[in-house]
Amino acid sequence: MKNLYLVWLAWPEKCFRADAEALRLLESLVPAGSDVESVSTESEFLARLPEATHAIVWNFRSEWFARAGSLRLLATPAAGRELVPTKGPDGVKIHFGGFHGAIIAESVAAFVLAWARGFFRPEVRVPVDDWGRRWPRVAMGDKCRRVAGTRAVIAGYGRIGKAIGAKLEALGVSVKGFGRSSAAELPSAAREADWFVMALPGDTGTDGFLGESLIAELPRRAVVVNIGRGNAVDEAALLKALEDGRIAGAYLDVFRGEPGPLGGEPGPILSRTSGLPWNLVTTPHSSAFSGDYLEMCFRELGDEGLL
Amino acid sequence: MKNLYLVWLAWPEKCFRADAEALRLLESLVPAGSDVESVSTESEFLARLPEATHAIVWNFRSEWFARAGSLRLLATPAAGRELVPTKGPDGVKIHFGGFHGAIIAESVAAFVLAWARGFFRPEVRVPVDDWGRRWPRVAMGDKCRRVAGTRAVIAGYGRIGKAIGAKLEALGVSVKGFGRSSAAELPSAAREADWFVMALPGDTGTDGFLGESLIAELPRRAVVVNIGRGNAVDEAALLKALEDGRIAGAYLDVFRGEPGPLGGEPGPILSRTSGLPWNLVTTPHSSAFSGDYLEMCFRELGDEGLL
Repeated sequence: MKNLYLVWLAWPEKCFRADAEALRLLESLVPAGSDVESVSTESEFLARLPEATHAIVWNFRSEWFARAGSLRLLATPAAGRELVPTKGPDGVKIHFGGFHGAIIAESVAAFVLAWARGFFRPEVRVPVDDWGRRWPRVAMGDKCRRVAGTRAVIAGYGRIGKAIGAKLEALGVSVKGFGRSSAAELPSAAREADWFVMALPGDTGTDGFLGESLIAELPRRAVVVNIGRGNAVDEAALLKALEDGRIAGAYLDVFRGEPGPLGGEPGPILSRTSGLPWNLVTTPHSSAFSGDYLEMCFRELGDEGLL
Repeated sequence: MKNLYLVWLAWPEKCFRADAEALRLLESLVPAGSDVESVSTESEFLARLPEATHAIVWNFRSEWFARAGSLRLLATPAAGRELVPTKGPDGVKIHFGGFHGAIIAESVAAFVLAWARGFFRPEVRVPVDDWGRRWPRVAMGDKCRRVAGTRAVIAGYGRIGKAIGAKLEALGVSVKGFGRSSAAELPSAAREADWFVMALPGDTGTDGFLGESLIAELPRRAVVVNIGRGNAVDEAALLKALEDGRIAGAYLDVFRGEPGPLGGEPGPILSRTSGLPWNLVTTPHSSAFSGDYLEMCFRELGDEGLL
């Protein structure tokens, strides 16, 4: 029987869309004689689903399995478990992307280094049009440190957490990672953290993980990083800690109530329209963005023998 | 004879000043029974210079050697050769700091990663107060890349250039370094550069090193980094290339006409008071700043047997 690889990757972010180049790569990875078809709407996808042996998608409803009689692989680039069922009928392998760590680890390393080297300080932020009059060199004289020799605590130590740990270790950071089984030891480790990195999944067991009581364990020099899911941070408590100088800073890539398929009501950060503190650095859930995102996804499927 | 270690490190940048903690470290590194004295003005320094066996300073005039009859070591934390003579009388060893690479390499890695991951994009720069209304996730969908797999060309491959190269290689970057002897091959290597990093000394042979003709060799995706000396960049040509999109961006830590002892008339960048392009990222000659700067300096003197 001829394989049909049905690709429905039509999200608006360019690096998440299957363009002609990505599809050519996929064609080069599947067995000779297979068909690769790309669709851009749900109705097109559902129309072709009965014949698909392999489907690569951003989202999939459990009830669709009933019309997927030929399906052997349901794969999503996503690492998060929100939009594709974690279990399917017998004979259907479900695959969530495991390649994100290599990208996200660069985002965390980027933030950690740039924070330590002062790039986010208000004194040096572009535009520097006024530097001719107020050269901020002396002002920066006590604002920079080295990353080598600092300590990171990573909460959530799956593939992504471990990739972050390895990248930070390559920069000379001493790393302690904690999963569910070692969670009890995390608060005492947090007391020594220069970097408190969260790479937790978005399930309800992680709701408000970083709240007042865990923040109270962090040293004042600590900087929080969250690249997992927004639900894990009590944003009101974090904002207060940043504004009070209780901790030194934070980098959030994820938020409560993000626009888009994971979202809901905007939380305290996204709903505030002015006055966020300078020591909160943010990116819009883009820590895994990369020009080669789908290339990595397809190569992983090939490398793991799933195509 | 008793050694006198005369320390005159009184520059206004806090990490460049010998505070009590740094002096205690120095005392722990010198032979037992030696004196460590710290002075804060030129006249105090000159008054004590005749008895000094070792002097650690930011600047020193050649004519002062005549009153330094006991001097065996003249050391400066600076890597640059501008403010301390490179040669002294027989019997006086001159030492310039060689420890900066470990710090500066972090600054370059910080910029490279943060640039690639989109942290400097106008779309995501803090404050993000308005994100509730204009979540910039889709806008960032084609703005991020991975650093691993990119290519760096480093012009100036002494200790600092090599430290930068090693740090970038640890991030998966392919690195080609060029010194004076290999300068002829640099322009053709520049054609493949994602990152064109300059770590050149400030002598006249490097004036305007990066000008129109070398910029013309760079690919449009190239990003320029200068952490050496400001004289090496033709700032007018660089600004034009940034504004025209001829290259993707630049990070400058050093400038023509910086305020302070290396300075002169402000050049095209520092004299412009408005309208610098967003893709020019700047820090105020702080790429080597670190809380442990003098600790590194003193430990290097100890490690090299100079104390």
